[in-house]
Amino acid sequence: MNDMVYRDPTAPVDDRVRDLLSRMTLREKAGQLNQRMYGWDAYRRTPDGGFELTEDLHAETERFAGLGALYGLQRGDAWSGVDHTNGPGAEDGAALADLVQRHVVERSRLGIPALFVEEVPHGHMALDGTVLPVNLAVGATWDPGLYEYSAAHAAAELRARGGHVALVSALDIARDPRWGRTEECFTEDPYLAARLTEALVRGMQGEHAAGFAADKAPVVLKHFAGQGATVGGRNSAESELGPRELHEIHLPAARAGIRAGAAAVMAAYNEVDGMPCSGNRALLTGLLREDWGFDGLVMADGLAVDRLARITGDQVSAGALALNSGVDLSLWDEGFTHLEEAVERGLVSEDVLDTAVARVLRLKFRLGLFEQHTTPTDFPAHGRDVSTTLARAAVTLLHNDAGVLPVAAGVSRIAVLGPQSATTAHQSGDYTAPQRPGTGSSVLDGLRRLAPPGVDIRHARGCALTGQDLSGIPEAVAAAAASDLAVLVLGGSSARTPDTDFAANGAARTAVSEMTCGEGVDLAGLRLGRAQHALLDAVTATGTPTVVVLIQGRPHAVPEAAERAAALLTAWYPGPWGGEAIAEILLGHREPTGRLPVSVPRSAAQLPVYYNHKDNEYGAYVDDSAAPLYSFGHGLSYTSFAYGPPRLSGHTVEVDVTNTGERQGRTVVQLYIRRLVTPVWPRTLELRAFRAVDLRAGESRTVAFSLGDDQLAQVGADLETAVLPGTLEIRVAQSAGDALTAVPATLRVPLV
Amino acid sequence: MNDMVYRDPTAPVDDRVRDLLSRMTLREKAGQLNQRMYGWDAYRRTPDGGFELTEDLHAETERFAGLGALYGLQRGDAWSGVDHTNGPGAEDGAALADLVQRHVVERSRLGIPALFVEEVPHGHMALDGTVLPVNLAVGATWDPGLYEYSAAHAAAELRARGGHVALVSALDIARDPRWGRTEECFTEDPYLAARLTEALVRGMQGEHAAGFAADKAPVVLKHFAGQGATVGGRNSAESELGPRELHEIHLPAARAGIRAGAAAVMAAYNEVDGMPCSGNRALLTGLLREDWGFDGLVMADGLAVDRLARITGDQVSAGALALNSGVDLSLWDEGFTHLEEAVERGLVSEDVLDTAVARVLRLKFRLGLFEQHTTPTDFPAHGRDVSTTLARAAVTLLHNDAGVLPVAAGVSRIAVLGPQSATTAHQSGDYTAPQRPGTGSSVLDGLRRLAPPGVDIRHARGCALTGQDLSGIPEAVAAAAASDLAVLVLGGSSARTPDTDFAANGAARTAVSEMTCGEGVDLAGLRLGRAQHALLDAVTATGTPTVVVLIQGRPHAVPEAAERAAALLTAWYPGPWGGEAIAEILLGHREPTGRLPVSVPRSAAQLPVYYNHKDNEYGAYVDDSAAPLYSFGHGLSYTSFAYGPPRLSGHTVEVDVTNTGERQGRTVVQLYIRRLVTPVWPRTLELRAFRAVDLRAGESRTVAFSLGDDQLAQVGADLETAVLPGTLEIRVAQSAGDALTAVPATLRVPLV
Repeated sequence: MNDMVYRDPTAPVDDRVRDLLSRMTLREKAGQLNQRMYGWDAYRRTPDGGFELTEDLHAETERFAGLGALYGLQRGDAWSGVDHTNGPGAEDGAALADLVQRHVVERSRLGIPALFVEEVPHGHMALDGTVLPVNLAVGATWDPGLYEYSAAHAAAELRARGGHVALVSALDIARDPRWGRTEECFTEDPYLAARLTEALVRGMQGEHAAGFAADKAPVVLKHFAGQGATVGGRNSAESELGPRELHEIHLPAARAGIRAGAAAVMAAYNEVDGMPCSGNRALLTGLLREDWGFDGLVMADGLAVDRLARITGDQVSAGALALNSGVDLSLWDEGFTHLEEAVERGLVSEDVLDTAVARVLRLKFRLGLFEQHTTPTDFPAHGRDVSTTLARAAVTLLHNDAGVLPVAAGVSRIAVLGPQSATTAHQSGDYTAPQRPGTGSSVLDGLRRLAPPGVDIRHARGCALTGQDLSGIPEAVAAAAASDLAVLVLGGSSARTPDTDFAANGAARTAVSEMTCGEGVDLAGLRLGRAQHALLDAVTATGTPTVVVLIQGRPHAVPEAAERAAALLTAWYPGPWGGEAIAEILLGHREPTGRLPVSVPRSAAQLPVYYNHKDNEYGAYVDDSAAPLYSFGHGLSYTSFAYGPPRLSGHTVEVDVTNTGERQGRTVVQLYIRRLVTPVWPRTLELRAFRAVDLRAGESRTVAFSLGDDQLAQVGADLETAVLPGTLEIRVAQSAGDALTAVPATLRVPLV
Repeated sequence: MNDMVYRDPTAPVDDRVRDLLSRMTLREKAGQLNQRMYGWDAYRRTPDGGFELTEDLHAETERFAGLGALYGLQRGDAWSGVDHTNGPGAEDGAALADLVQRHVVERSRLGIPALFVEEVPHGHMALDGTVLPVNLAVGATWDPGLYEYSAAHAAAELRARGGHVALVSALDIARDPRWGRTEECFTEDPYLAARLTEALVRGMQGEHAAGFAADKAPVVLKHFAGQGATVGGRNSAESELGPRELHEIHLPAARAGIRAGAAAVMAAYNEVDGMPCSGNRALLTGLLREDWGFDGLVMADGLAVDRLARITGDQVSAGALALNSGVDLSLWDEGFTHLEEAVERGLVSEDVLDTAVARVLRLKFRLGLFEQHTTPTDFPAHGRDVSTTLARAAVTLLHNDAGVLPVAAGVSRIAVLGPQSATTAHQSGDYTAPQRPGTGSSVLDGLRRLAPPGVDIRHARGCALTGQDLSGIPEAVAAAAASDLAVLVLGGSSARTPDTDFAANGAARTAVSEMTCGEGVDLAGLRLGRAQHALLDAVTATGTPTVVVLIQGRPHAVPEAAERAAALLTAWYPGPWGGEAIAEILLGHREPTGRLPVSVPRSAAQLPVYYNHKDNEYGAYVDDSAAPLYSFGHGLSYTSFAYGPPRLSGHTVEVDVTNTGERQGRTVVQLYIRRLVTPVWPRTLELRAFRAVDLRAGESRTVAFSLGDDQLAQVGADLETAVLPGTLEIRVAQSAGDALTAVPATLRVPLV
């Protein structure tokens, strides 16, 4: 075995890579960089309920003398056409994966296994995969610990059915809610996004530096970089932003994820400074590898390499441009299938090719794929609990006039109304696999199950999410009028259906049925569907106190709900069991603890509305405020809290936090900085620390924050992040809006 | 005189500057860089109708041992409080200027005269100054020659009353119509802006390289740089754009103006990449002086230097930062009054100070101010003709169903309706001095004067520009119903009134009366006032064919007018005589020849809508198109034109243009390029040449364009503008929208 170092599991990974690479043909190398096939084309179900491999897979492994990576073997959804009749579930996903892997290894002269790459945006997007709340809901929890736990669960599910690598949106920053992928963003804020990205990497990958435990999965952080800043909120359109905006807002999550050890990043579709990320050497090599020292894998987004042919003239040169720019592994493209030709034509050097191949191989060695071709672990239990816990933490109470919530003991008749009230179909967001019938609970289900005995719960849908059919509104109005309380559940939907028209990369091409959100479904206006507004108007006009619950993938602009509803909550897309989580909070079984991860606009006309704009003298539009309807960080409790002024002592800030209400509750203490004397123009506020604190009624506690680089550093004139001399204020508050008027403590940096 | 070189008019300017500088004290030098005083505080009218100088002016010249520059001595408007009762007019402006200059020279130990700096945004903003159409209307003419002629007139008026230097908006590119200063932009397009900026410089400054003729004025190009790209269309807010967007879109006009010899630029309020332009050394020194070789003057915008104290901590350091960054002359700031202290504290070197002083002095020598302290020339005549000619060329016909225009011979009853129909109060835009009663003509005036005898013209206002008073609508509806044709004149207003609340820099702080536009008056929504929409609905519902005319400072979103009106025109702010120009075109006395200098959006929700976005695959919002309602370059004639395919021959493109209609007319032939194979991601289209062609009915002509650097060059990966190898298409069309489907000619660059 001495001359087969790559087969020696005790040899250092780099030695194994080098040895293997030295044995490979150009064609075999090119094959390692391809991930051309849709996974669901690799198998079909047999009459006996097993799986067999397709001719397509055979052709693919023949073409590349093996297979670099296979995308979405376990994916199920309307686009792939995979559902419970034909796709792998929890019980047989591992067997399918092992079947494919055996084939790949057999077809590879050197026995090189494939990477199985899967979508895990909010749970594994596979049949029986546990659907978690979407990232925007994760952002609303302000709870990296809880998310780390949830991410670990998702990774364990993935690995237990033979998946290896998890594709997860984490890097996109929500700067324009018109964008249909806003639901995939944690937040508008770089600091909160960075903490959640770290949690994702820790949860999925674990702490094992050299390899990965059997229930841990290397993560591909999506998307690098600036995808949240495309012009007009238009999916994969250009970004016009400059390097400072990129460094201050859009790169911190990526840098935090990479520092936490992320195995890979995915280059974004959008361009940055004139070049799509997949062809952007300054970004993928200059910044990512040379400046940041990243040594992991860079994957292109689906068909992003082929798009480069728009400017290079053909797919061969497109593949060469991507590889030379720093893309290691492509997705579905033709461009990377021609890398042999690209080498032969002198468009890329074999050295550059080898470097990319080495990165793919290194990941396979780190995963132990050369040693282990079968999937050993059991499918983890408790998925529902994980998802529900996360959903509960995400529900955010925006206003609660006269304490209509939690539902009082005297309320005996509740009308549960609205297009989102009695269905789970729209609770889970885009990138969700088909659910088994009976999975999940709607708000109506939750209230029926949890309301005290004797409470009369009636339901009327009122209208659909979209369209102008108002015929159901009278029934809803009658139900509201005959009740003590109306719970009106409105919102949007990213649910794909079989009649959705998909682009070649799986993005929806047209919005059918009730789709208002998700990839490819961008909105110009931020209003709800017209019938929903009519329903809201009609129900609130009855005079029955109305609680509006929004289930949505972006912050819709519904100022009428703020004005007319007695209470307003947003649950984002809370996942299948979100209805139960919402019901628990409405009834007061749980406290609302969510906080807004994004500013809620008044209308699309006032965009952008993020809190962390530059600190200029701008006042307002003459026809509207420039301020949001609800501020970043805002979220009410069923109790109230008071914060004392911040006290500075060396590198520590302390603030006294008191529960001034009648109930136990949780507040998220938010530390913002406001730079005064500073070398570059500052933002009005920057979130730089936060801490959730549980307090009993009347209880007081001192919360301490350390002031380190994460709190004080800034992006200097040279674009380097460092603590620079200056003066700044510390403001501790319950939201960014409150921070504007909070009592500051002023300090000079660097601290001595 | 040998030892007084600076007094020798035959000595080279640089020698004179050096000599004078060597004689000056630090305080005298600092004085040259200040322009602190509002000019209208320098004088008051005496009971005998003359002027006397104020104590304020005495104090100012005492303080600085002279005076560097004086802003707005002739300015008249609501903010300055100067009107015909107390300010200088055409007949005594020169005498006032000479009075002040004599005082300044007497107070200066070395006899250094002051620069009189005046606002000339669309004509000299002074009593009796001829008001021209605003820049957006100039953009609509697509006629640099006509604008050069108009600019020459404005400069002659300025100099004839003792002004020296003209402040003119030229560099702001209209990328977000929410911005209240959109009216001050020529266009959304860098190429058209560049041609008009060159015309401005040539017209105002003339061809005299060393000095300036007596009727020519050095121009300060406003604003450098990127002010059209501030976030959310918010006045003087930050710009997030990157260096490529800056170079491709926002800098070409500046570069063209500087190549044409512009004497000065004004640093913009907004920040670029983290630093306000006034404190941005990379911009003002690195790019402007070192890369571009600009050797003229850089003036700060009003109070922009003092704003830097927000981050430097005090005004002394703010002044030092601005001077060190490249600002030579400040406006109204305290910061530059402390430059002596800044030198003494070591914050700036005396060398840097000297360099700035030299630039101020050089301009004074070039103007001949040391030789000539009195104003010699006569006030030029024909201002009204100049203004009307420009207004006529700006009127743009957007649609004309079934040829309702020009008004047919059978039309005997015309209802002239709407809040803009019978007043000139809102025709002139921001930065307009009070007009003498009777100046100008409304659309009603024009139609009454020009309509054939016997045509019955009735009028009803219907409503105001703003507000919700619908009480006048029935009268307007009755007038429309009783007429053969309704002419409905709607729009916005930038007219300041004495009750306007102004910020310290003259921007409106709140919009009062009917103000919807202008500096400080940004809109979130792009709709007209609510009553105007009600009036439009009611008048078109009568069934009487309705011609809608928009008089506006930005493209309002009025899709109803596109749908329901028989014809639609926009005149932008056409100036005092705009109503007559519009009437001429409605009646067919003149052909409509204007073309859109900006894309007209469907709503604020779909912003941005400029035509020259990057060429990505983005389709549309699911609830709206991403395309404009009317395309950049669009404008109808009363005849029609057909363009043949482009023919390439060496460095020339030829296209056959035919008047296919029944009338004489003028078409603006627009040459767009579309890059195919190219080193950086291209825009969908780029305007790179245009030519107006007058053709008789049935006439055909071949139009030839040369393909030079202006047509082919691009901003490369290194941000240098050059002709780079690649492939591109030439598309010749009547608008950017038409160019999308025009037959292309493909060529490789560089041409051989």
